[in-house]
Amino acid sequence: MDTQPIGELLPPERMLMGPGPSDTHPRVLRAFSIPPVGHLDPSFVEIMDEVQSLLRTVFRTDNRWTIPVSGTGSAAMETAIGNLTEPGDTVLVPGNGYFGERMAKMVKRAGGEPVVVDAPWGEPLSIEAVKTECEAHDPDIVCFVHAETSTGVKQPRVAELTGVAHDHGAIVIADTVTSLGGVELEVDDWGIDAAYSAGQKCLSCPPGASPLTLSDRAVEKVTSRDDPVRSWYLDLTELGSYWGEERAYHHTAPINNIYALREALRIAVDEGLESRWDRHERVAGALRDGVTAMGLSLNADPEFWLPSLNAVRLPDGVDDGAVIEHLLTEYSIEVASGLGALSGDILRIGCMGHSAKPENVLAVVAALGDALERQGAVVDAAAGLEATTEALR
Amino acid sequence: MDTQPIGELLPPERMLMGPGPSDTHPRVLRAFSIPPVGHLDPSFVEIMDEVQSLLRTVFRTDNRWTIPVSGTGSAAMETAIGNLTEPGDTVLVPGNGYFGERMAKMVKRAGGEPVVVDAPWGEPLSIEAVKTECEAHDPDIVCFVHAETSTGVKQPRVAELTGVAHDHGAIVIADTVTSLGGVELEVDDWGIDAAYSAGQKCLSCPPGASPLTLSDRAVEKVTSRDDPVRSWYLDLTELGSYWGEERAYHHTAPINNIYALREALRIAVDEGLESRWDRHERVAGALRDGVTAMGLSLNADPEFWLPSLNAVRLPDGVDDGAVIEHLLTEYSIEVASGLGALSGDILRIGCMGHSAKPENVLAVVAALGDALERQGAVVDAAAGLEATTEALR
Repeated sequence: MDTQPIGELLPPERMLMGPGPSDTHPRVLRAFSIPPVGHLDPSFVEIMDEVQSLLRTVFRTDNRWTIPVSGTGSAAMETAIGNLTEPGDTVLVPGNGYFGERMAKMVKRAGGEPVVVDAPWGEPLSIEAVKTECEAHDPDIVCFVHAETSTGVKQPRVAELTGVAHDHGAIVIADTVTSLGGVELEVDDWGIDAAYSAGQKCLSCPPGASPLTLSDRAVEKVTSRDDPVRSWYLDLTELGSYWGEERAYHHTAPINNIYALREALRIAVDEGLESRWDRHERVAGALRDGVTAMGLSLNADPEFWLPSLNAVRLPDGVDDGAVIEHLLTEYSIEVASGLGALSGDILRIGCMGHSAKPENVLAVVAALGDALERQGAVVDAAAGLEATTEALR
Repeated sequence: MDTQPIGELLPPERMLMGPGPSDTHPRVLRAFSIPPVGHLDPSFVEIMDEVQSLLRTVFRTDNRWTIPVSGTGSAAMETAIGNLTEPGDTVLVPGNGYFGERMAKMVKRAGGEPVVVDAPWGEPLSIEAVKTECEAHDPDIVCFVHAETSTGVKQPRVAELTGVAHDHGAIVIADTVTSLGGVELEVDDWGIDAAYSAGQKCLSCPPGASPLTLSDRAVEKVTSRDDPVRSWYLDLTELGSYWGEERAYHHTAPINNIYALREALRIAVDEGLESRWDRHERVAGALRDGVTAMGLSLNADPEFWLPSLNAVRLPDGVDDGAVIEHLLTEYSIEVASGLGALSGDILRIGCMGHSAKPENVLAVVAALGDALERQGAVVDAAAGLEATTEALR
């Protein structure tokens, strides 16, 4: 048995500019530390109602089944996919990034057949490709990633995409992990049947309770299943009786995570969603202008640029690990490397929620210029910083 | 869309004396509100090591695979059952309480065949019954609940029970949700192959990251599965690469929950496990003496008494809901009603972790006496309080 004494928890203070978590607002940290009531306390039932209401506001939906899932973003993802996928279902999944691959894995675990809609990493799905695959495979479900955290690409023309899926009678599941609360998302207007997200991205709430919403049509598919959902913990028909009118005990909710999420959602709603989207675009735009003026380029085409996650291409010969370590050790700034097909080629610089502020972007652009110069890369760090400053003015 | 403004979070202050959550130590609340680092930060990797080490200490195990699962206790439960149960496996589950029924449900979700070992609610499993069912069904897995939160019963003779299971080549899974950190538990010495727990019981950490440990023998069963685990989120072979030496990204850990759990575990280890078990027994013993002197009785035989959860039988004609509401509204004390077969017959009074202290027990015994007298029950409230005070001296 281990017996060495373990001291006080003193983690370093970071500026979180990676793919999440983002910096947490002090109000959210305070909410985390409120002594919990019981998960069946009458006052907690009220809090559940409030969180559901706030989630509807940020998702832009009237969906009754809108809840925080008791786990991190991947738990909400598997709740959506695992409840909606029945054994034998055909499910279109996007081929243009890391999280589409994860969707395919979860579809298989649920007993479904994933069919990949091809697109290069760094591009969105084309509506035409979705249509072709719908015609070829007549899918039960069409999945897409609204904001691909691995490539920095935002899926455009969502309403057209859902229209194509609906024409074929399919249910649409959207990964909105890196868009909710940061870039425009209209669940109802765009015809999305199920959307899931996470706290630690544009909502800036430490992970542990994760947003999920399902339309009546999606709920109908879940409640008319022949086989039970393969996970009891994530079974929406069980969760529905806790979060629905019955308020029957299913499992103990992560009470303090719900407190924190409630505060993070209040902050988002107080700011106003449109203002928040604008802020992300403005601040991330200054980052984009800075790295571009420095001589670098974004991986994503400007048309599909995702403000909350900027995939910055590294000059040839620059070691991504060395740049990341320099930023972390010299400046305590976290950014991340590429995943999968983009591993080694890009840096992923987040601009999410409470992290999306002018001072952070200035610091990142300046620190990145320094790190690249130290690596011997030919960049114009001064021009980068000037462009960022100009854009923020 | 809902648009009513939602105000500051101001939940009532409770004394949590139900079946969990228990009161949270201020140090744990402070740890919750520490600004998070990233889940792949080098400093977080150290924190992961420390939490694993602390978990081994409280579980009394050397098991390498000892981790906090990213969800509440039921997530750890399904991680244990869902990873160890392969389709077609025969799994003995206990019939003596609510959580044995939940085990059976999870076994079915995993494709296994549950076989119930019969025992009345309020009694432990008999070793003889386990032996009989092992002989009759040759199970792959034997499950038991060490501390049944629905009945207040502690399973005795655990090493004999695991011995019987091992004689038949079965893996043993223990539910230690309401025992870990509160009553004696010896994972290695007792031959338990897999044990899971929760934060919000005797560790007094708000729910969201839940202890799990697996022996090498259990890990061998998981890693030699033919079919993949039915949940990607809870798949230990995937989680192993994050919590194991590789530290590869699987999902984002609930960082602040890990911070809080680390602090709760430090508090437990600083107190000393034996001292902690003694405290639970002494303080809960004063509660037991009080309710007995008042004229009530515990549901469990003294031999199987579970200090952390006291199932108190209500006098005939007393409405449990009215008593619970009186305690909550007059004194802000939470206790709970019975579940399943004991619904309406008992009150469940917890005595867990930071809630297991003399002042809380005095308040509960006094408030219970008051509530019962108001309900017209014939109890000797004064004698109850005197016995409690005497026992605490």
